[in-house]
Amino acid sequence: MTKKKVAIIGAGPSGMAQLRAFESAERNGAEIPELVCFEKQADWGGQWNYTWRTGLDEHGEPVHSSMYRNLWSNGPKEALEFADYSFDEHFGRPISSYPPRTVLWDYIAGRLRDADVRKYVRFETVVRVITFDDETQQFTVMSEHLPTGETTSEIFDDVVVASGHFSFPNMPEAPGIETFPGFVSHAHDFRGAEAFEDQDVLVVGSSYSAEDIGSQAYKMGAKSVTASYRSNPMGYDWPKGFEERPAIREIDGSTVHFVDGTSKTVDAIIFCTGYQHKYPFLPDELALSGPNTVYPAGLYRGVVWQDNPGVFYVGAQDQWFTFNMFDAQAWVVRDLIMGTTEMPSADERQRSIDEWTARFNAVTDVNSEIAFQGDYVRDLLEQTDYPTFDIDEVVSIFISWTKDKQEDIMGYRDRCYRSVMTGTIAAKHHTPWMDELDDSIERYLAGHVNVQTGEITLPEREKTAAA
Amino acid sequence: MTKKKVAIIGAGPSGMAQLRAFESAERNGAEIPELVCFEKQADWGGQWNYTWRTGLDEHGEPVHSSMYRNLWSNGPKEALEFADYSFDEHFGRPISSYPPRTVLWDYIAGRLRDADVRKYVRFETVVRVITFDDETQQFTVMSEHLPTGETTSEIFDDVVVASGHFSFPNMPEAPGIETFPGFVSHAHDFRGAEAFEDQDVLVVGSSYSAEDIGSQAYKMGAKSVTASYRSNPMGYDWPKGFEERPAIREIDGSTVHFVDGTSKTVDAIIFCTGYQHKYPFLPDELALSGPNTVYPAGLYRGVVWQDNPGVFYVGAQDQWFTFNMFDAQAWVVRDLIMGTTEMPSADERQRSIDEWTARFNAVTDVNSEIAFQGDYVRDLLEQTDYPTFDIDEVVSIFISWTKDKQEDIMGYRDRCYRSVMTGTIAAKHHTPWMDELDDSIERYLAGHVNVQTGEITLPEREKTAAA
Repeated sequence: MTKKKVAIIGAGPSGMAQLRAFESAERNGAEIPELVCFEKQADWGGQWNYTWRTGLDEHGEPVHSSMYRNLWSNGPKEALEFADYSFDEHFGRPISSYPPRTVLWDYIAGRLRDADVRKYVRFETVVRVITFDDETQQFTVMSEHLPTGETTSEIFDDVVVASGHFSFPNMPEAPGIETFPGFVSHAHDFRGAEAFEDQDVLVVGSSYSAEDIGSQAYKMGAKSVTASYRSNPMGYDWPKGFEERPAIREIDGSTVHFVDGTSKTVDAIIFCTGYQHKYPFLPDELALSGPNTVYPAGLYRGVVWQDNPGVFYVGAQDQWFTFNMFDAQAWVVRDLIMGTTEMPSADERQRSIDEWTARFNAVTDVNSEIAFQGDYVRDLLEQTDYPTFDIDEVVSIFISWTKDKQEDIMGYRDRCYRSVMTGTIAAKHHTPWMDELDDSIERYLAGHVNVQTGEITLPEREKTAAA
Repeated sequence: MTKKKVAIIGAGPSGMAQLRAFESAERNGAEIPELVCFEKQADWGGQWNYTWRTGLDEHGEPVHSSMYRNLWSNGPKEALEFADYSFDEHFGRPISSYPPRTVLWDYIAGRLRDADVRKYVRFETVVRVITFDDETQQFTVMSEHLPTGETTSEIFDDVVVASGHFSFPNMPEAPGIETFPGFVSHAHDFRGAEAFEDQDVLVVGSSYSAEDIGSQAYKMGAKSVTASYRSNPMGYDWPKGFEERPAIREIDGSTVHFVDGTSKTVDAIIFCTGYQHKYPFLPDELALSGPNTVYPAGLYRGVVWQDNPGVFYVGAQDQWFTFNMFDAQAWVVRDLIMGTTEMPSADERQRSIDEWTARFNAVTDVNSEIAFQGDYVRDLLEQTDYPTFDIDEVVSIFISWTKDKQEDIMGYRDRCYRSVMTGTIAAKHHTPWMDELDDSIERYLAGHVNVQTGEITLPEREKTAAA
């Protein structure tokens, strides 16, 4: 019997989880399918693979990552820790609960460092179009190797879509924006707030991007930060100079008029208005579309495309849980592809979709949505051999985190959580987030650890640099 | 016999020329093929269809246009005038030689206004992949209607690639760029220089974009403009505050170090480093690749893809001649598709390619390159029924224009040329380019024309506004 051939689209956290899932089965003695992971970028890590570029990359492809300089985790790392590779194992000592991007990237990549799965990834190779042949029940994947322009068509039995949904900006029209003379961008193309020192900055939106990019601008010395919300303000206890306004009515030159009749003259506008579900390489009958929800329609167990069970999605839902949820999904997808778990009939799948959709529709608030996603992850864990972990504890970390932010939006990143996986209490970072202007891993890891207290002492030189 | 079916990719100046070419044949009594023109944007005009958006558009597709507010033609309109639709016919009176973008867009669109060809254009529809079937000798075009996400596959006999090659930025790496704290963009994403008032601006490059974006920054009150060249400086007689430096060695914070040992601290860097030939929808065997030259390899008469004469390119070469050259190309392509002109054998085509390539290789300087392109256009005109015009006169306009720029880089746009098509002398614009901050067509056309002298008098109100 010839081996099955599986295409994985994207080598970000979800695609890397899928590679890890197969590798884990192989380590346990199973014969795994032939794998090809297509990755547009020159390295793996997806969003976590920072680039200074905006818009189109060096090959003229849409830039994937939406991250920026000085981005620190906006949720406690204890909620996203891998169950099969702890922070302790990677760093050899406790680190803080909210590390910067470089540190998290190091952790994600670290898990695969010795796993010998990089050989499956075709870097700088973009998937152009995937088609499905009803007769052969196979997929043709057309791809292009970007440095050479060489195009290739190949047949696959299954396709795992792991390309993410935080890369294609949702950018609304605003009356007058076409003649606004200042800096305009979407959060996707924001790379740092240093240039906003002494400037008046407007962020449009009321979700994570608006919250964090507004905070970055404040931290970097913006003269004022205004956040414009469509439905509800974020409502945090913002510091002086940071305020919320309702939706934009129109823009006249540099002056933004809001629907409450107030106005503000600004130097820069950053649209933090979310992302599109966009899979340009998929025909419409295989492509998930928005909105961004915790239980998207048409996916059995959140991963199997109901209309064609040869197509799988990993990480396609809105996310409280992240890395460890992608793992649970990838392990389940692996089992279904390898036949370790039998693919249920279309009717059975539909029953499950209906049941979970009904449960999802009963979600009333943030806390019940977090709990819902916890239940979803627990359900996945019951199907597969990914190491189980205390879901309730993760849920309570998320709930506690939302409270931390209510209490101190500029200081919540200085708090410490206990690892669900190892019980280790996070170390206090040597510098409060608000004062830390260096997001490099070298700076982050500099210092001495008190193994008793987990406290880190910064060496003399760095202390000076931080002052 | 069933009608031939022709796909035209793009409804910019080249695609619009192709539509006009077929419409012209139909007007003359010929039966034309079935036409489908795929256009990603919601309107036609290509580059000339301005958008305030940068990076990715409202559908998450790469933004096509590289134009900006206050962009005025950088060459005399008399060199690009259509031979079958004059500026006089469109505007009913003489206008200046260097109109703003809005005015040129009006002119391009005006020619097709009564031509009933808009029905052939599928707007907001992007071509994903084109494949060729050796057996049927036909093309399959896979496209997506962006507002609905609906994907379609259709068979065509011929494909005209008219998607342009000034949309995918060529963005080099520069050491230290990843931590430069100021504004960074490529010319493709530059939308206006107003925000550069009192700022120090660096443009990287020495071609049209660097020249014009640098001039825009100067015009809008930049504190200083620095242009960094790789091989040779532009060498114009720049005004005080505008200077040229050699290539960047490295960037340290906000300070840019050049290879001559000098440095400059800047607020913004705009890479005017050109564009890539990129046709993401074409398999490698059908895709033209760079470099950007006046006679690209592999194209018979600059339009027929030698390896597959069912594929045509319009406007794919580097350009002195533009709109009227696209017309000549489109007319020739039309005749070849319709069989009015017989497609020469592969050997004959290769002989022509070799002959023209040898001539192109003999080009030694700017003036002989302009003359070469004039000869190329003349050769096309001899093949088809597009109205002939005085090529030598256009060549001499181009040569004179390059001298104008040497004489007065900030004032050359105030000069007037005589139409090659109608003999009309351009009107003097009511306001010198350097003082004109309003690029709207309303403002441009406001005023009274002295039909004797062609001079325009600005009405009282506008005079005040301009002051």
